[in-house]
Amino acid sequence: MDDARTLAAAYIDRLEQRDWDGFTELLAEDVVYEMPQSRERIRGRARFLRFNVEYPGEWHLTPAVVLGDDRNACILLDWTHDGDAGQAIAFFEVAGGRITKVTDFWPEPSEPLPGREHLTERF
Amino acid sequence: MDDARTLAAAYIDRLEQRDWDGFTELLAEDVVYEMPQSRERIRGRARFLRFNVEYPGEWHLTPAVVLGDDRNACILLDWTHDGDAGQAIAFFEVAGGRITKVTDFWPEPSEPLPGREHLTERF
Repeated sequence: MDDARTLAAAYIDRLEQRDWDGFTELLAEDVVYEMPQSRERIRGRARFLRFNVEYPGEWHLTPAVVLGDDRNACILLDWTHDGDAGQAIAFFEVAGGRITKVTDFWPEPSEPLPGREHLTERF
Repeated sequence: MDDARTLAAAYIDRLEQRDWDGFTELLAEDVVYEMPQSRERIRGRARFLRFNVEYPGEWHLTPAVVLGDDRNACILLDWTHDGDAGQAIAFFEVAGGRITKVTDFWPEPSEPLPGREHLTERF
């Protein structure tokens, strides 16, 4: 069973297509969306839909890795947003054939920590 | 088949145990480790082992979500490092029964973007 994997893949696809009806169908009515980095949480399908519809700028999402089982899934995705590009990670929880929780991480560029230059190269 | 899932789970467990021989056995000799945020790359099992052995401070890793198939895996993990705590995400590629690539993301705390306070709560 890979229900969560299938739902997660559809989630990214329908976001990218701005297929808002199809996107809504994937979500439990009491879906919870969390961004742990900023400690922001959105409760409920209606608010979460609005968050995505209202998200500013020109953005695109392309899955790079999609993994999941019957309960949980994870997507590594390549994003572009106006002139920027990067990667983000979304984790999904599924129950009853719908997505009940989405947890997003948006890692920022950072400087290397000192003391490991003898082992690393930059790319 | 879930070879990659099994190897990824063992990777975190043996790191946490400081089982360096067992850790090394999981890795292809030409394993590549990447941290995209700092654009650092480490090539080869010997250097990557040394990177982990030398990693400063008191650190612990606990898997929160482990997903994978025969080729790829992902782990969301809870970390502590001296007085700090957070979550990180590791992606794995596997071939020939060994880990060939590890890609780590270490998301940092961030401030909420403006314009979505009507939809979000803080936690």
